[in-house]
Amino acid sequence: MKEKVVVIKVGGNVIDNPEALSSFLRLFADLPFKKVLIHGGGKVATQLAKDLHIPQQMIEGRRITDAETLKVVTMVYAGLINKNIVATLQSYQCNALGLTGADANLITAHKRVHESINYGYVGDVDVINSAFIKTIIDQDIALVVAPITHDGQGQLLNTNADTCAQVIAEALSEYYEVSLIYSFEKNGVLLDVNDDESVIPVIDTHSYEQLKADQIIFEGMLPKLNGAFNAIHNGVKNVIIGKWEDLNALIEGTKGTTIQR
Amino acid sequence: MKEKVVVIKVGGNVIDNPEALSSFLRLFADLPFKKVLIHGGGKVATQLAKDLHIPQQMIEGRRITDAETLKVVTMVYAGLINKNIVATLQSYQCNALGLTGADANLITAHKRVHESINYGYVGDVDVINSAFIKTIIDQDIALVVAPITHDGQGQLLNTNADTCAQVIAEALSEYYEVSLIYSFEKNGVLLDVNDDESVIPVIDTHSYEQLKADQIIFEGMLPKLNGAFNAIHNGVKNVIIGKWEDLNALIEGTKGTTIQR
Repeated sequence: MKEKVVVIKVGGNVIDNPEALSSFLRLFADLPFKKVLIHGGGKVATQLAKDLHIPQQMIEGRRITDAETLKVVTMVYAGLINKNIVATLQSYQCNALGLTGADANLITAHKRVHESINYGYVGDVDVINSAFIKTIIDQDIALVVAPITHDGQGQLLNTNADTCAQVIAEALSEYYEVSLIYSFEKNGVLLDVNDDESVIPVIDTHSYEQLKADQIIFEGMLPKLNGAFNAIHNGVKNVIIGKWEDLNALIEGTKGTTIQR
Repeated sequence: MKEKVVVIKVGGNVIDNPEALSSFLRLFADLPFKKVLIHGGGKVATQLAKDLHIPQQMIEGRRITDAETLKVVTMVYAGLINKNIVATLQSYQCNALGLTGADANLITAHKRVHESINYGYVGDVDVINSAFIKTIIDQDIALVVAPITHDGQGQLLNTNADTCAQVIAEALSEYYEVSLIYSFEKNGVLLDVNDDESVIPVIDTHSYEQLKADQIIFEGMLPKLNGAFNAIHNGVKNVIIGKWEDLNALIEGTKGTTIQR
């Protein structure tokens, strides 16, 4: 039987709140499993870009990453946020290692090609170095991944953190029984976006199609859920979406929204 | 016989010049040894602090690291510079891993205590996790270290890059035959600071005392040379100071200034 590994994505709103982040990291540090954390960037990068008078361009809800914006996200994600998370985990007696996709070729990607939109230095993932991740987590070191990848030609690329979590979880499924947890500020996928108690406990492929048809699930949640379904079809054992404060219950599958085939 | 490892510090002036940095990294990538690179920060951090209107206070030539300045150096050293070095090395087919002292408890330090000066978040080194460094370089992955450490209590600390290089070289001497190279823009330690051809080929403990007494070596070079002598007394096999363009010749000991007991 394969050993259990948890791959956890923590969202921007938790990163933005020092007390929430600290509480979340305490929960993460205490998890009795081999583990990988992927963090987003929150509003710190947006604020830094503003302070540096670097205009931020959004197209269809996505940030365009020009050369100056890439510097900002590299500084904030790979530097400030990643290293403070690592130092905090160390203080909780959780040995941790913070990396980007460039380090040890962890995540190789290519610059996004789109017929009409130039996303700039945004990366779509090609290859995960799962063997290296294995050497780290097998030493009982928690891996903390910032969503910056590289193209192997010297170019760093800004990459969606949900996608990084998904592809890492998939790649690790070769060696481990992987649970992929998308943790954020909501209780799960909601039937009514205004009612935080209206969590949908299970979504399978069939009900997902119905929820989309009924427009109960729309825009913001679609990429996350599409990624979740890809993960469950690509070898990941469990995929659960829910509130960061319920981390242990999410891993047990007793809270949040469970994704099933 | 112990295997050879090179530990190389590269100075700020090289970091500040993209073409020089690229040429240096090509030389580093091609070195046929297990290797560790420690980089300084150059002027990028100073410029970013200026752009963000964070006043920089220097006391006796040393930067005071207040909380805002610590954020800046963490972003620039651990994020921007470290990750661009790693991505460039990857493009030269040199597998590299970029870390700070917080990662895997690589370098634990304490906040500097001084009877009259409050240096802020500046760290003096306590412990190196040389066993972890060994697991990385034994996979033929080059380690790239940003001079940020941590205190084990969740606090990141700004730490002198020359010192980081020295203590890493000392710690690795338990396992390897270590050459420590301080590479910068000068040909070595100079008899006449205005004559770049006046390199002193060898300095030993006796001649060092004489050079200090004659004030040929003063201020800026003293901490570097004191560190170099500490290294040579603490198990490091070779310590050489010289120009980054001569990296191979420095490692062979045919250029630069060699430090001897």
